[in-house]
Amino acid sequence: MPRYRLLIEYDGGPFVGWQRQDTGPSVQQALEEAAERLCAGPVRLHAAGRTDSGVHALGMVAHADIAKTLPDGKMADALNAHLRPAPVAVLAADVVPDAFHARFSCVERRYLYRILTRRAGPALDKGRVWWHPRPLDADAMHAAAQVLVGHHDFSSFRAAECQADSPVKTLDALAVARMGEEVHVTARARSFLHHQVRNMVGTLALVGTGKWTVADLRAALAARDRAAAGPTAPAHGLYFVAARYPDTEE
Amino acid sequence: MPRYRLLIEYDGGPFVGWQRQDTGPSVQQALEEAAERLCAGPVRLHAAGRTDSGVHALGMVAHADIAKTLPDGKMADALNAHLRPAPVAVLAADVVPDAFHARFSCVERRYLYRILTRRAGPALDKGRVWWHPRPLDADAMHAAAQVLVGHHDFSSFRAAECQADSPVKTLDALAVARMGEEVHVTARARSFLHHQVRNMVGTLALVGTGKWTVADLRAALAARDRAAAGPTAPAHGLYFVAARYPDTEE
Repeated sequence: MPRYRLLIEYDGGPFVGWQRQDTGPSVQQALEEAAERLCAGPVRLHAAGRTDSGVHALGMVAHADIAKTLPDGKMADALNAHLRPAPVAVLAADVVPDAFHARFSCVERRYLYRILTRRAGPALDKGRVWWHPRPLDADAMHAAAQVLVGHHDFSSFRAAECQADSPVKTLDALAVARMGEEVHVTARARSFLHHQVRNMVGTLALVGTGKWTVADLRAALAARDRAAAGPTAPAHGLYFVAARYPDTEE
Repeated sequence: MPRYRLLIEYDGGPFVGWQRQDTGPSVQQALEEAAERLCAGPVRLHAAGRTDSGVHALGMVAHADIAKTLPDGKMADALNAHLRPAPVAVLAADVVPDAFHARFSCVERRYLYRILTRRAGPALDKGRVWWHPRPLDADAMHAAAQVLVGHHDFSSFRAAECQADSPVKTLDALAVARMGEEVHVTARARSFLHHQVRNMVGTLALVGTGKWTVADLRAALAARDRAAAGPTAPAHGLYFVAARYPDTEE
């Protein structure tokens, strides 16, 4: 049975998250059911990241074994036809070797977090950005963010429900930049703890308003205690941007 | 009574358009009702452009006389508080001289049209772009667009319902550029005919796919007949971007 690597865009708003749950529709379920209608057999998807409810994806990667062979490009078209009207789009579906695993083969994950910093709330980007009515100093946030880059115990930025074996991770990059009325935070690592990006963003926002100094952030990281860091930024500002694999070019 | 100039962003999706109509909710009605709740009296809004159902605005300008004086910045905050949860945001509300008229004082209007050119439909930008699954040659479209720039009889790009006195308009700029997976068309003129931008975009798309040549476009313009030009591009790809007034800096 051919193994497909899927590249997926989705609006996380109407879903309980990536993973199947009894409490409501999931992205995984939408995709699995589309594939099952296509091949008339059971399909199980595995994703590079299991995003929370409300979190979006511009380039999620997942794999599935689908008992159907279609000409180039037609698998994505067929899945999209079965997905409608769910806000999930398969951007590419390529046959890969059976050894490929979207979660375990992944060597790097990238996230984007969008913050809208203006007095008026978003009309067009509602549910797509964190609305932060007070100004944020993106340069100060970027400078502080560098404290978090590297090999650290990220317990202060880890959700209580996190299932990772260890709180020690290597954060390869964390950048903050102003883009007009928005502040964009980009994060890159092999893997992240549960809520790590949202907890880092919520804490960096304290630096952005001037409430916290770089020293405060350093102390929060050293405390290895969730209570020492800032609040969790809302899910709907977060985007899973890309997953990288050893065989893919940057 | 102070006259306010409002700068407004809205999602055109849930509205019948800018203008009040019996058939459903309008942006004008949402804003007038918010202002009326604020000053407890009747309020009438006048806009730089009366956008159709589904058309969005990043920077619509409107004026209204509102019997309420508030400190700097507070009028926009108060209107936004009364607008919730409608997807309309007042970005600024400034007191202007009584001679200011959002429609009649306007010397330039700018529109953006977004086309998504990829096989998979939009998941995150559904209702925000025209999904055009076939590739478009943006450079060819841009070159052809220059035929339309200038002082012309635009009857071929005018809706049957258009109420303008004359089909002769001066189009100051029409530019087409590729932005990643999207093609952006920007248009600038003192004023436009009804559906003019959407009809120009729908026709330029014929050039983008190679169906039409620049000569075909020139012939369509010269025909002064709506039937000679291409189809009307969908409303939901169109954005009213900005209105310029003699007193505002570029």
